[in-house]
Amino acid sequence: MTIINLDHISSNPLLPEVKTAMIEAIQMDYANPSSQHKKGEQAADVLESARESVAKLINCAVAKEVVFTSGGTESVNHAIKGVAMANAEKGKHIVTSNIEHSAVIRSIRRLKSLGYKVTSVSVDEYGQVNPQDVADAITDDTILVSIMHSNNVTGTIQPIEEIGKITTEKKTILHVDAVDSVGVVPIDVQALGVNLLSFAANPFYGPTGVGGLYIRRGTRIFPLLDGGVQENNKRGGTENLIGIIGMGVAAELARRNMDSRLLHTFKLKEKLLEELPNYIDEYIVNTHPEFSLPNLLSISIKYIEGESVMLMLDDDNIAVSTRSACATGSLRASHVLLSIGLSHADAQGTLVISLGIDNRQEDIMAFLKSLKKVVTTLRDISPLYKKTSRV
Amino acid sequence: MTIINLDHISSNPLLPEVKTAMIEAIQMDYANPSSQHKKGEQAADVLESARESVAKLINCAVAKEVVFTSGGTESVNHAIKGVAMANAEKGKHIVTSNIEHSAVIRSIRRLKSLGYKVTSVSVDEYGQVNPQDVADAITDDTILVSIMHSNNVTGTIQPIEEIGKITTEKKTILHVDAVDSVGVVPIDVQALGVNLLSFAANPFYGPTGVGGLYIRRGTRIFPLLDGGVQENNKRGGTENLIGIIGMGVAAELARRNMDSRLLHTFKLKEKLLEELPNYIDEYIVNTHPEFSLPNLLSISIKYIEGESVMLMLDDDNIAVSTRSACATGSLRASHVLLSIGLSHADAQGTLVISLGIDNRQEDIMAFLKSLKKVVTTLRDISPLYKKTSRV
Repeated sequence: MTIINLDHISSNPLLPEVKTAMIEAIQMDYANPSSQHKKGEQAADVLESARESVAKLINCAVAKEVVFTSGGTESVNHAIKGVAMANAEKGKHIVTSNIEHSAVIRSIRRLKSLGYKVTSVSVDEYGQVNPQDVADAITDDTILVSIMHSNNVTGTIQPIEEIGKITTEKKTILHVDAVDSVGVVPIDVQALGVNLLSFAANPFYGPTGVGGLYIRRGTRIFPLLDGGVQENNKRGGTENLIGIIGMGVAAELARRNMDSRLLHTFKLKEKLLEELPNYIDEYIVNTHPEFSLPNLLSISIKYIEGESVMLMLDDDNIAVSTRSACATGSLRASHVLLSIGLSHADAQGTLVISLGIDNRQEDIMAFLKSLKKVVTTLRDISPLYKKTSRV
Repeated sequence: MTIINLDHISSNPLLPEVKTAMIEAIQMDYANPSSQHKKGEQAADVLESARESVAKLINCAVAKEVVFTSGGTESVNHAIKGVAMANAEKGKHIVTSNIEHSAVIRSIRRLKSLGYKVTSVSVDEYGQVNPQDVADAITDDTILVSIMHSNNVTGTIQPIEEIGKITTEKKTILHVDAVDSVGVVPIDVQALGVNLLSFAANPFYGPTGVGGLYIRRGTRIFPLLDGGVQENNKRGGTENLIGIIGMGVAAELARRNMDSRLLHTFKLKEKLLEELPNYIDEYIVNTHPEFSLPNLLSISIKYIEGESVMLMLDDDNIAVSTRSACATGSLRASHVLLSIGLSHADAQGTLVISLGIDNRQEDIMAFLKSLKKVVTTLRDISPLYKKTSRV
């Protein structure tokens, strides 16, 4: 069964080089990097070498500012809860935006139940935050600003550098959830002016369940996983060394091939945007025309349900998504789509098409052909379509 | 370089079947188990099948009571902090013991800084908790009892079933850190009467960086990783599916081969205990003669430093440890060894020898031969030895 994968935002295939490295690691039977004997030291060397590769990808000068985690969600929880707990005596106010990932929203919601106050800034019709709104929201009591780098539903990229200037000036800790950006678009933690940056390996073709948290030296933060002295005392627990080795190789390749990957997926996205009107009508493009991920396109197709489109495309062996995979099971319309001003009906008609380096132009054409058929079928049975549009 | 591994407590090699399964998983490029298309469903099936295997290993009747985590440390943090946060309105008192792993100690220390109160019960000379002490420590304000199943430094096993009867009667939540027990000795969450049980894959020859938390239905607990709806809404974050698949296979084999493994390591341990006096003198056996892990022996060799013994054995390509790998870097004597009544000097002379299914009798004999040489060399240069013992 060959499936055309246009759902890279949910999961990316592993690169061949990543597979090879992970398989080698499995065969090696590495010891515990914290053990002091020879076998332990050998494991520690491999761990630190992966850390160097990952640090370089985000232009982090001191590799030990990178802490390996079990993925984006752990990184985000560590950053938000860790800063909140460590700075509670300074203040209990957090600034965030209306379009964050559930890991950010729910971490902050947990803190709210513990007495923290939150200001959530709104976004424009493409999902962009206005940096001035962030500046206005910061008070003397603010201990943390958490804004995502790119949105996983619309692909829109935020003006983090401007926000970083504001938080630097106001001496507020800035956390950036860059899970869907690191390894996909250039990320420079120094230029962005962030204190904390969450990321994961899978968006750049590394394994799932492995991630990283950049913690700039001097940032006041508690660990989320208290325990042993691993990860420079910032995260207890024996490391997922096989996964980390895969992440290291993926990071190295992402850095080296960033430009060609960007170009490859951007061309496909352009083709898709250009051809779309030849196949369907009455749809909204939710993705920012300029500031957006090169590999993601979000569209809302009027009068039908994205869920039905997704399932019918699946019958044609084409994988897309309608929302964050992390929100599967929830029947509510995406909070991100409502925040950019879509009606409930339009939000329900949303498809997220996310491209990867393995996609070819034929995939786009096959998708469009199938989409046309599916949309026609669904609109033919949609009372909403007949009533609103064609009668 | 062939190394005799007598440091299984720090890391176990992967079983061949686990390697094969993980390599297959790498080649499969599974999708995100939360994705709703065919590829997502296939991944979800594999995930749930691993959960079934792991649940069976601990005799958990409802597989979804098992939550996959990034390892023992995350499980412990989730259990302790999750219960403390979720039950803060009921009370803020926690009961634990003096010989817990750093993950438990540091999680509880974090809670202390947030205003929680802690009673830590002492242990006897083999490191056993007296259940009556736990009963006496529980007050109306107690929301959690956290006692480990087996100790990672002495190997001593606690009377959890008796403690479980007490906490059940007193309606207090019981968390058991069973990281070094699950898959090594039979564990039955129903017979033990626990609400929460932390464990990890590596002690039963699965990968590092993967673990589980058993959460009995009805236990009031918050997630540690807030985010998506994964793991039945108990732990956000895309799963480390490759690692989880390895854990599932390892769990299945641990269950099937439990008896033969127990016998194999126990025989080696018996041999070691029996031969030891023929090679060295003046040592203390810290491990309980009856209630202890079949694969672990802790001895304290008088007048010398365990650290030096470990490094010199390493030169002979024999790996042992002196303490928990998670405490590497700390120069202080192990709190566990001080708690069982060892002097600082004796505690410093401790070796932890942990056996595995890959060990043979020849390994034991090679170790003893090397140990004799090392101990003689070190005692010859030890002022303590000359002064105390031989002058």
